[in-house]
Amino acid sequence: MRILDTKNFLIPGFKVWGIHSGIKKTDKKDLAIIFSDREAAMAGVFTKNRVKAACVQLDAARIKSGTGQAIIANSGCANACTGKRGLHDARETSEIAARALGIKPEAVYVASTGVIGEFLPMPKMANGISTAVGLLSASGWEPAVEAIMTTDLYPKLAIVQEEIGGKTVTVAGIAKGSGMIHPNMATMLCFIVTDAAISAPMLKKALLVSTERSFNNITVDGDMSTNDMILCMANGAAGNKRPGAGSKDSKKFQACLDAVTRSLAKLVVRDGEGATKFVEIEVRNAKTPVEAKRAAMTVAKSSLVKTAIFGEDANWGRIMAALGYSGVEMDESRTDIFIGKSKLVEKGLGQGKQAEREAALALKQREVHIAIDLHKGKAGSTVWTCDLSGEYVKINAAYRS
Amino acid sequence: MRILDTKNFLIPGFKVWGIHSGIKKTDKKDLAIIFSDREAAMAGVFTKNRVKAACVQLDAARIKSGTGQAIIANSGCANACTGKRGLHDARETSEIAARALGIKPEAVYVASTGVIGEFLPMPKMANGISTAVGLLSASGWEPAVEAIMTTDLYPKLAIVQEEIGGKTVTVAGIAKGSGMIHPNMATMLCFIVTDAAISAPMLKKALLVSTERSFNNITVDGDMSTNDMILCMANGAAGNKRPGAGSKDSKKFQACLDAVTRSLAKLVVRDGEGATKFVEIEVRNAKTPVEAKRAAMTVAKSSLVKTAIFGEDANWGRIMAALGYSGVEMDESRTDIFIGKSKLVEKGLGQGKQAEREAALALKQREVHIAIDLHKGKAGSTVWTCDLSGEYVKINAAYRS
Repeated sequence: MRILDTKNFLIPGFKVWGIHSGIKKTDKKDLAIIFSDREAAMAGVFTKNRVKAACVQLDAARIKSGTGQAIIANSGCANACTGKRGLHDARETSEIAARALGIKPEAVYVASTGVIGEFLPMPKMANGISTAVGLLSASGWEPAVEAIMTTDLYPKLAIVQEEIGGKTVTVAGIAKGSGMIHPNMATMLCFIVTDAAISAPMLKKALLVSTERSFNNITVDGDMSTNDMILCMANGAAGNKRPGAGSKDSKKFQACLDAVTRSLAKLVVRDGEGATKFVEIEVRNAKTPVEAKRAAMTVAKSSLVKTAIFGEDANWGRIMAALGYSGVEMDESRTDIFIGKSKLVEKGLGQGKQAEREAALALKQREVHIAIDLHKGKAGSTVWTCDLSGEYVKINAAYRS
Repeated sequence: MRILDTKNFLIPGFKVWGIHSGIKKTDKKDLAIIFSDREAAMAGVFTKNRVKAACVQLDAARIKSGTGQAIIANSGCANACTGKRGLHDARETSEIAARALGIKPEAVYVASTGVIGEFLPMPKMANGISTAVGLLSASGWEPAVEAIMTTDLYPKLAIVQEEIGGKTVTVAGIAKGSGMIHPNMATMLCFIVTDAAISAPMLKKALLVSTERSFNNITVDGDMSTNDMILCMANGAAGNKRPGAGSKDSKKFQACLDAVTRSLAKLVVRDGEGATKFVEIEVRNAKTPVEAKRAAMTVAKSSLVKTAIFGEDANWGRIMAALGYSGVEMDESRTDIFIGKSKLVEKGLGQGKQAEREAALALKQREVHIAIDLHKGKAGSTVWTCDLSGEYVKINAAYRS
């Protein structure tokens, strides 16, 4: 597998664009279209929130077909908590796009992100779609990814290549994240495109596995969104032989997909609202994989741990307290805690000033690694999060105004 | 029941004091003693965190006797994650106090709050206890409550009186809170004293009921402490006839206890770290009481809801999203949301600009009431929390330094 520079963002058979249609009050881009020049195999993962945005409801029904050809994504308005009118608007969005693209509405998927409880401005959407379709280009990924950003500080892209079934296959993805980021669902918006030829059931399976290894291991603020989705389109333009189940090629494809989703998931955390640090939390030797992940996530979600990291304070007591209330089997007197390379805690006891100083140095970096050894079993889990800064509060106290 | 002014804080048969012994680096008070002039019935509720401070381990064993005569509480050092030495220090603290007070060590309960992972400075503790015992006074509650504060901005006291068993009985309590506040345990430190004569089993039952109605309904930052405890001493100095089980007097006593614990629980939330607003969240018509509380708590814990309240933004979409991921049975199209008197959402839909303006006005107050009607059943729950401000981050990023 080759990891490409995101400047060379071209995926055979895909044309995209992003524009400002007027949904956002500022002059920032707010409408993106991703279009495959032929029908593609399609898979999706959607939020597990009981409150689902209109677009999630529409797409979750359409994805059953396993096929699709276009994605219309807007930022600035989530079209969530909008009832029947919201669902009608989402459907109409897909119909307008279908007419402009000359395809059937069922092949169009809709994604929205932004403020909950407001209706989509349909005349603006219609004009915007018509304009964007006219501008579609194989090299339009930069404006497209910009158009799905909300509080994101930078665009998130990832692209890899691999030889599969005798051809060079490209797997690429774009994502937006920042706030309302919490695992156990398809977190945020992420669109993955590939020119690989692959069956829809295999694509679906690969996407589920990949989501579990990437987006379901991150948390920014513990809030699960109503609009999260990952859509993956495989249009077969590479002309490769379809990988068979369990084949070496299918493993290569999975590795490509994993590389893209992990890269995007980490970018989402790195750009978490107000984040100043990227934090990797690794739990070792838990009793079960579920407990390992639960312990890591509880530490990752603790406001006290996150503010301590922001303050570059090696306050391991807060980590221990979070482990204690995580509900997993643990024994204080067996637990070791590392920050960076410093063994801060051994068998439940602090290892003194020198260890604290080393940990404090590790905390001064932009990337912080925390390892917890529970000595209770053999299961491990690694999750990614960011620190909690005053800027997070500032952003979210003022988001709508 | 009469609610007394906390300036008149006198409970027959109790002497207390608080001093600066040198545990805290500043010159603030850090050691308090509460002493009953006779053996008292004693009940306690302790943290459910698997990581328990040494004092919690010691007291949880001693409380089985149902009796006690003194409480030694220190702030500045939590004596948590301190292993065998920590447990030895807690026991020694009780022994030093017992000698100074002329009682047996088993009648002394120890409570600590502050930084986790540091050892108690025993010579300072010994000097401090000796000094404080010499100063014990019936009117020493002000220095005592000051000595248990950490990041608390003000002392928390509550006192009520009632006629029980032919006598005037006083029930009073002091508490400290501020950070690492999350329900499902005895949150923070709270000491309740009464001159009522009441059996230990009845006191225990009343305290458990009262905790469920008060401290277990609050959250500041969702972090469960290693040191939380509520201790309740009833020394019988009022000379009342002991209330019988299920009697009118026992109900009166329960009401007094509830008034004190609710008052203190609300004070803890009001003084939550960085809090600018006191927020009451009421869930109505949930399917079960457990679901009602879970829904209310999920909303109360959401960082996005809390920052919106700090920003005085009637961003009800975040409330709906939190309800959606709370795991309780809910149906967006049945849910109503009120902020203050404004019905902001009816059957899942926003009620327009006028409702938003009214809600925004309600959010400008220091006290905010949010009501959620799930229309799913008949169960309700009310929880108390505070907003999440930049100040919270500031306090917790710098707490140890």
